[in-house]
Amino acid sequence: MTDNSTFPDPTYRDTVLAPLFEGVKAHYAQGMDAINRAHLVMLAETGILPPWDAARIARALGEITRETDLSALAYTGEHEDYFFWIEAQLRDRLGDLGGALHTARSRNDMDHTLFKMALRSRAGHLMQQVLHLTTALTDKAAAEADTLIVAYTHGQPAQPSTFGHYLAAAIEVLLRDAERLEAAMRGLDHCPMGAAAITTSGFPIDRERMAELLGFDGPLVNSYGCIASVDYITGLYSAIKLVFLHLGRLIQDMAFWSAFEVGQLYVPNALVQVSSIMPQKRNPVPIEHLRHLASVTVGRCDMVVSTMHNTPFTDMNDSEGEVQQAGYAAFESGGRVLDLLAAFLPACSINADRVRQTTDAACITITELADTLVRDEGLTFRAAHEIASQTARAVIAKRMPLGSGYAEFAAAFAEETGRAPDLTKPAFAEATSPETFIARRDRIGGPAPGALAKALEKYRRDADVMQTQCRRRISRVSAADAALDAAFQHLTET
Amino acid sequence: MTDNSTFPDPTYRDTVLAPLFEGVKAHYAQGMDAINRAHLVMLAETGILPPWDAARIARALGEITRETDLSALAYTGEHEDYFFWIEAQLRDRLGDLGGALHTARSRNDMDHTLFKMALRSRAGHLMQQVLHLTTALTDKAAAEADTLIVAYTHGQPAQPSTFGHYLAAAIEVLLRDAERLEAAMRGLDHCPMGAAAITTSGFPIDRERMAELLGFDGPLVNSYGCIASVDYITGLYSAIKLVFLHLGRLIQDMAFWSAFEVGQLYVPNALVQVSSIMPQKRNPVPIEHLRHLASVTVGRCDMVVSTMHNTPFTDMNDSEGEVQQAGYAAFESGGRVLDLLAAFLPACSINADRVRQTTDAACITITELADTLVRDEGLTFRAAHEIASQTARAVIAKRMPLGSGYAEFAAAFAEETGRAPDLTKPAFAEATSPETFIARRDRIGGPAPGALAKALEKYRRDADVMQTQCRRRISRVSAADAALDAAFQHLTET
Amino acid sequence: MTDNSTFPDPTYRDTVLAPLFEGVKAHYAQGMDAINRAHLVMLAETGILPPWDAARIARALGEITRETDLSALAYTGEHEDYFFWIEAQLRDRLGDLGGALHTARSRNDMDHTLFKMALRSRAGHLMQQVLHLTTALTDKAAAEADTLIVAYTHGQPAQPSTFGHYLAAAIEVLLRDAERLEAAMRGLDHCPMGAAAITTSGFPIDRERMAELLGFDGPLVNSYGCIASVDYITGLYSAIKLVFLHLGRLIQDMAFWSAFEVGQLYVPNALVQVSSIMPQKRNPVPIEHLRHLASVTVGRCDMVVSTMHNTPFTDMNDSEGEVQQAGYAAFESGGRVLDLLAAFLPACSINADRVRQTTDAACITITELADTLVRDEGLTFRAAHEIASQTARAVIAKRMPLGSGYAEFAAAFAEETGRAPDLTKPAFAEATSPETFIARRDRIGGPAPGALAKALEKYRRDADVMQTQCRRRISRVSAADAALDAAFQHLTET
Amino acid sequence: MTDNSTFPDPTYRDTVLAPLFEGVKAHYAQGMDAINRAHLVMLAETGILPPWDAARIARALGEITRETDLSALAYTGEHEDYFFWIEAQLRDRLGDLGGALHTARSRNDMDHTLFKMALRSRAGHLMQQVLHLTTALTDKAAAEADTLIVAYTHGQPAQPSTFGHYLAAAIEVLLRDAERLEAAMRGLDHCPMGAAAITTSGFPIDRERMAELLGFDGPLVNSYGCIASVDYITGLYSAIKLVFLHLGRLIQDMAFWSAFEVGQLYVPNALVQVSSIMPQKRNPVPIEHLRHLASVTVGRCDMVVSTMHNTPFTDMNDSEGEVQQAGYAAFESGGRVLDLLAAFLPACSINADRVRQTTDAACITITELADTLVRDEGLTFRAAHEIASQTARAVIAKRMPLGSGYAEFAAAFAEETGRAPDLTKPAFAEATSPETFIARRDRIGGPAPGALAKALEKYRRDADVMQTQCRRRISRVSAADAALDAAFQHLTET
Repeated sequence: MTDNSTFPDPTYRDTVLAPLFEGVKAHYAQGMDAINRAHLVMLAETGILPPWDAARIARALGEITRETDLSALAYTGEHEDYFFWIEAQLRDRLGDLGGALHTARSRNDMDHTLFKMALRSRAGHLMQQVLHLTTALTDKAAAEADTLIVAYTHGQPAQPSTFGHYLAAAIEVLLRDAERLEAAMRGLDHCPMGAAAITTSGFPIDRERMAELLGFDGPLVNSYGCIASVDYITGLYSAIKLVFLHLGRLIQDMAFWSAFEVGQLYVPNALVQVSSIMPQKRNPVPIEHLRHLASVTVGRCDMVVSTMHNTPFTDMNDSEGEVQQAGYAAFESGGRVLDLLAAFLPACSINADRVRQTTDAACITITELADTLVRDEGLTFRAAHEIASQTARAVIAKRMPLGSGYAEFAAAFAEETGRAPDLTKPAFAEATSPETFIARRDRIGGPAPGALAKALEKYRRDADVMQTQCRRRISRVSAADAALDAAFQHLTET
Repeated sequence: MTDNSTFPDPTYRDTVLAPLFEGVKAHYAQGMDAINRAHLVMLAETGILPPWDAARIARALGEITRETDLSALAYTGEHEDYFFWIEAQLRDRLGDLGGALHTARSRNDMDHTLFKMALRSRAGHLMQQVLHLTTALTDKAAAEADTLIVAYTHGQPAQPSTFGHYLAAAIEVLLRDAERLEAAMRGLDHCPMGAAAITTSGFPIDRERMAELLGFDGPLVNSYGCIASVDYITGLYSAIKLVFLHLGRLIQDMAFWSAFEVGQLYVPNALVQVSSIMPQKRNPVPIEHLRHLASVTVGRCDMVVSTMHNTPFTDMNDSEGEVQQAGYAAFESGGRVLDLLAAFLPACSINADRVRQTTDAACITITELADTLVRDEGLTFRAAHEIASQTARAVIAKRMPLGSGYAEFAAAFAEETGRAPDLTKPAFAEATSPETFIARRDRIGGPAPGALAKALEKYRRDADVMQTQCRRRISRVSAADAALDAAFQHLTET
Repeated sequence: MTDNSTFPDPTYRDTVLAPLFEGVKAHYAQGMDAINRAHLVMLAETGILPPWDAARIARALGEITRETDLSALAYTGEHEDYFFWIEAQLRDRLGDLGGALHTARSRNDMDHTLFKMALRSRAGHLMQQVLHLTTALTDKAAAEADTLIVAYTHGQPAQPSTFGHYLAAAIEVLLRDAERLEAAMRGLDHCPMGAAAITTSGFPIDRERMAELLGFDGPLVNSYGCIASVDYITGLYSAIKLVFLHLGRLIQDMAFWSAFEVGQLYVPNALVQVSSIMPQKRNPVPIEHLRHLASVTVGRCDMVVSTMHNTPFTDMNDSEGEVQQAGYAAFESGGRVLDLLAAFLPACSINADRVRQTTDAACITITELADTLVRDEGLTFRAAHEIASQTARAVIAKRMPLGSGYAEFAAAFAEETGRAPDLTKPAFAEATSPETFIARRDRIGGPAPGALAKALEKYRRDADVMQTQCRRRISRVSAADAALDAAFQHLTET
Repeated sequence: MTDNSTFPDPTYRDTVLAPLFEGVKAHYAQGMDAINRAHLVMLAETGILPPWDAARIARALGEITRETDLSALAYTGEHEDYFFWIEAQLRDRLGDLGGALHTARSRNDMDHTLFKMALRSRAGHLMQQVLHLTTALTDKAAAEADTLIVAYTHGQPAQPSTFGHYLAAAIEVLLRDAERLEAAMRGLDHCPMGAAAITTSGFPIDRERMAELLGFDGPLVNSYGCIASVDYITGLYSAIKLVFLHLGRLIQDMAFWSAFEVGQLYVPNALVQVSSIMPQKRNPVPIEHLRHLASVTVGRCDMVVSTMHNTPFTDMNDSEGEVQQAGYAAFESGGRVLDLLAAFLPACSINADRVRQTTDAACITITELADTLVRDEGLTFRAAHEIASQTARAVIAKRMPLGSGYAEFAAAFAEETGRAPDLTKPAFAEATSPETFIARRDRIGGPAPGALAKALEKYRRDADVMQTQCRRRISRVSAADAALDAAFQHLTET
């Protein structure tokens, strides 16, 4: 079989190699430079390369970086990819020595190190956005600790609560999402460098030093796993996905609360799109955008994860450049959700009139009346329940608030018990008021001010812990950058 | 509740409105111009607008198009979106009359018309790529009609077949995928214009004329459905997804066939990435890129479809601009798969040596020997089977091809039947040759040349039918473009 | 390497073989019997088996069927699977001849034929449920052709429409879903029998006769495709998925419409779960069950389709028994959605008071007033719009219905034009009434009675076409069953 | 609007209520009993119920449990669900007092507590299966620490490694998956009881005591979150999904390694399905079953997670009974994958002949020769590389193993350097042997015995940590069960 064809086939060049080259320019050139510099430092420090060779390579690398205008660099097909383009530049300047930089490493370990570095910075930024939203929600929850709302079950008004209490529920989920994200980010903290092509190297490399210079916590152990395992990707995108899947549920509530007929949530003018001819038509369109951007983000995460499905567990392009870059779109859309929501929710307020209206119309404090009768009048549950139920029916029939229905209550009480209630009219009004309802629910996790304050305190502490972890990671990377710069500089001056 | 905030909130502007504006510029400006012109023509033709007014608007529209440098247009927040920017331009030029263009329509029906037009052209192009691949595969199948391959079941060598026969199986799936795509494209053929905001209009609009001027087959009937139903999107992306899900299975076979140890598929130098030090290492990397690009495409389709999940059935942004644009990435990655595969597969060839080697080593013609004994020696199935099985065991033990094992066969035959076989040595060699195996399988859908030729003939006809449908759609759109230009030109000259 | 292990490994037996055996008993035993009988008839008719042998096998098959109590049959590991169990039964009764039934076929073509038959009956039943729902919705739409509702865009009241018009939008989607389902069912209409292991057979089999006897439209052509292509599965589940994805959007509207504060949809007592103490709390829980059952169905369809991702295109278990059976759960949950929705929606009614209340409060007929002024008073759009807008603002401020706001209208008119309107008070009331709004929208697809009646007429015709296709398929299968019974009976009597 | 309909509508009963009732019987009856008993204990301990009342209820509960034959209980529609059936039983026995058990709680908090308990036991069992597989793989890796294999990149032979080293890569991923699972299980450790309907209760309940009695770590804080947040579900299924997504990649390698032409992995007779006529055809079908069962498990996890998408963040059936039960199928299929794989992989062995054959044919130790020349002969990288490359080409052309190619090497060396190599023939043979290749890679994570032993040691420690966590959770639950039994018993004896 004669084969006179030469690489690259033009269609392959246009559909794969050129787009990949553009991707490397956009996302990985800087990281590759860091890896090159760190690897050279390590080769010199371990004596794998003699100091004078390392110094010459260092100076050439510096020159190439200074002299290259990335944006002007176009893919020609002459070099398979950006890596080979750099190597060719080194050889142009250094001859044979140019190849020495690639001792004891491979594109395999370099690639996954690059991908982890790129994800690390993106995930770090996303975590900041998540924590910023957490803070915004916690501040809002504190500010709205006493703001009554109607709480729903099965989509129907069920009980009074406070906006602060509701937001606290959302914060708890978000904090757990942040923990999942933090756990997933730990999957980015171990460095593949030194795995080389698959099995590490016969040269006495120092994997721990490489990890340190590149801002990792340490080397990822198994060298085949370094280049073949993809759970740092799937774990991360799975965690990100959940953030947006869960926020999407909050967003659905916002959509409902801001519906014309419900009106519990007031969205300010700055965030509604109006109709000049229909003065009542205030479309809270940001909510829709939040919803679909969250869904798109979920879908983008799934796309990355699904791409790994049924691929071999061996170094393969399925987890590399193109797929990595396709995934970055999730950070873009997800980041917009987080920023917009952190602006949107604090800007909104609760429409107290509408809350009161639904509270009355749906008689949602009635269960507390029954409980009160059990506690204070010593009635059986059945009797208390019967009186409450009759009272509710009576006030609803008369379209009056429950709190004004003392007469109806007293009648029901008398009918059931044959006596007048001990509960006075003011006590009745109090027992059926949403404020009392809230105040009495001072159990762990309840809406009463004390219980809520304790909870918010805890959320702030939890968020602080994560903020600290985040900062520690950022510091570690910055410190490594500085150390690498110094070591490299030192090398060039050898 | 006082609300002094003004639209737009800066975060909303930056995270939503500005990106949307850029999206409209990139994808919909031309379509919006066509809709404006068509709607104006229809308003004039129906008498809803007097001819002189229509003429003035037409001239202003022409001017705006000519004078606008889209690329220089940046989102300022002054106008909610591009639509309002155009309207403001018209009002600048025409005063009150500028608003008349919007009579009897709405952004709702305009938007979904725009989206259908944008999908129509993308889907049309993708269909051309699918049909191009079909042709490439059919030509290849015809050229490889006699090329023996090893066919697998459960991943193990099972029977001889031909490369042509194998490709024909792939072509059948691809043709059915093309049919699904064609059916989905019919979902783009009906025009929402005239639905207006939800319920059509009190003005005597002509929906059929609008559909015609914009290159549709006719109006989509129910006006609420025009703006609320999303199955034109979900149906299309579901159909596209299947193309790539199915191609992915073919790609997995190519990966296996081109493995070093298997070697049934020879990938030419132009399409392998090599190692200078390991002369045997020929990485057929395009196959990996095909796989992950197909997976990414599948994931992008799913992302669009999932975004619609649990959204209300009412006009909503979940099916609009941003989500539409996010979906276009599927056409981009999918198109690359189709183009690359149409270049890749025809460039590859079957390695006859490796096929022969596996054919012999795995004894894959042995079932035909048993069948022959039943037919020609009048043996029972059990006896025939027993002889064939013993023969196979003997030749495998001696590492010889089955066709050379006449002595072993004769011995097995004698042992089982107590007599010599009628089957002569040449007849035995023939009965166990892969060529005979193929030739005898001249049933509908079998690999024998006659059967395959008939099948390929049918595929070409089926592809032609779809090609014709495709061209008809393209012609309809071109004719409509021309008719619209003429009608609009006529209007400006009124 | 010595290997003294014997099949089956006990863990394999317990985790795979035994569950598979139970699955065959539950789902495929009857189909396998039909295939056995049809294949035998074909072997006899083509002369591949002599008549007396065929007759003996036929009688043995009949005996086995009669004498086997499937429910009592437990997997022992003695026979690999149910297929081999049957074959062993035949050999027990017929000796060597027992193996002759398997001439010119394979478990490969048998399996996919079985799966298609099993899906054909399930999909046929699901289609009946879809068409039943279509009819239920069309009847309801006709009955509610004049029932006013509030129609929403962006989740906010936008215009009046009718319940009939709204349902018609849903019906159109459902009909297109039914068409997609019908197209997918055509993917089940071609028979794999005769493909044998991969490449058809050297025996002169009659694939068309086999297809006919088993109720197919004809043979599926490419024999490798018969056993390797999975698009009959993926195409079907993709189509089913869309039915439930789209119904889910309708269900979200129902959830909103039946919310306490909205109340547009009245759900009768038979379909709400109530609280004895909170008389206003009527939880329309069936809507929630519809939603999650639809979502679960979507997820089950996705599960089947995704299982095929990145599998080789060769005969493999990924598309076989277990996965097939896992998919059947989608028919179960989906069928419940269709049946429940077909009972639920017709039982619900529109709460006219709430519709009127929102219509007034949101001033949703105001655009028609502006249009009327353009048409009847000859105003410019801007002027008409200005008057309408001022009128709306005034009536909303006074919390009065728009129709009662003639004085406010006249004042606004005078201010804008300097004259009194020609529009009389009754004409104003008419122009702003929802009934007029509907009546004037008699365009294609509009809500006016005439337009809607035409549309419903079309839907009934479309549904009838699909019903006919459905019945034709059922008849074909029944006729084939009868023909097979007769041919087989004839054989046993030979 | 008169409404004479009565609950339940028969279709609703048949499609929803009856299936739900069967589900409760199958999965939750025991948990509900525990919750009833624990709640009663808490009510008594806090004094919310007087001791004599609590005692009477306790005795009645005991009777009901003893006297109820769950399997005989059929849904009649008389009671809405199983909860109400129990309550009715209590009222039958205790009159009014029967209702007192429901003081200060709700079906809302009970339901999510039940679901967590049911998931806790299933996830605990799955974790045991994961850890069992980890142990099986670690033992296997230790046993195969010296077993050479061919390691692949891009699906092509690349370097020698050991089976132990390869398995270690898989173990690392599995351990991280176990950590993700453990983290997700912590999401099940907090108890919703006490949230009551939404906002806790006005009664002085003891949420910590309830959590303790039911084996939780403590109460889940925010009471609305207790009944509305679903991340305990989505987090768990996301973690489970990844286990099987990642195992699926290992399975793909097994499929490739056991292919006829590759043959690196020998699957014993007990785990292959054979063909009696084709002695070479050994179908390692368990691998296929592992693959699709893993995929089905992934799909089932996705189904549960996707069902939550775009649902409101409020107590809703989307996260309750039916969806919960649909999810359990993931444990069933996933458990089978884990058990089968833990039996399958240890039973397999590496075919040393095939490994040696591919090692030689693909010349995969060649890079070590080049490295050796750099280190030991002081050559430049380019020169070393050139010599190695020429040697490889020569031995491949002559179809000889690299280790036998000393003459070819010496010739290449001389041509490049003009001198004879210092490397002796035995040293050359050693430098190019796979054993040396392995031995020299004694870096962190490398395949050399020392490095691997250290890694395996670490994996055992990591697995032990998780095993301990697992046992601690199980002990906590057992201890709670015992404490609850004692407290309840004490109550009945009051």
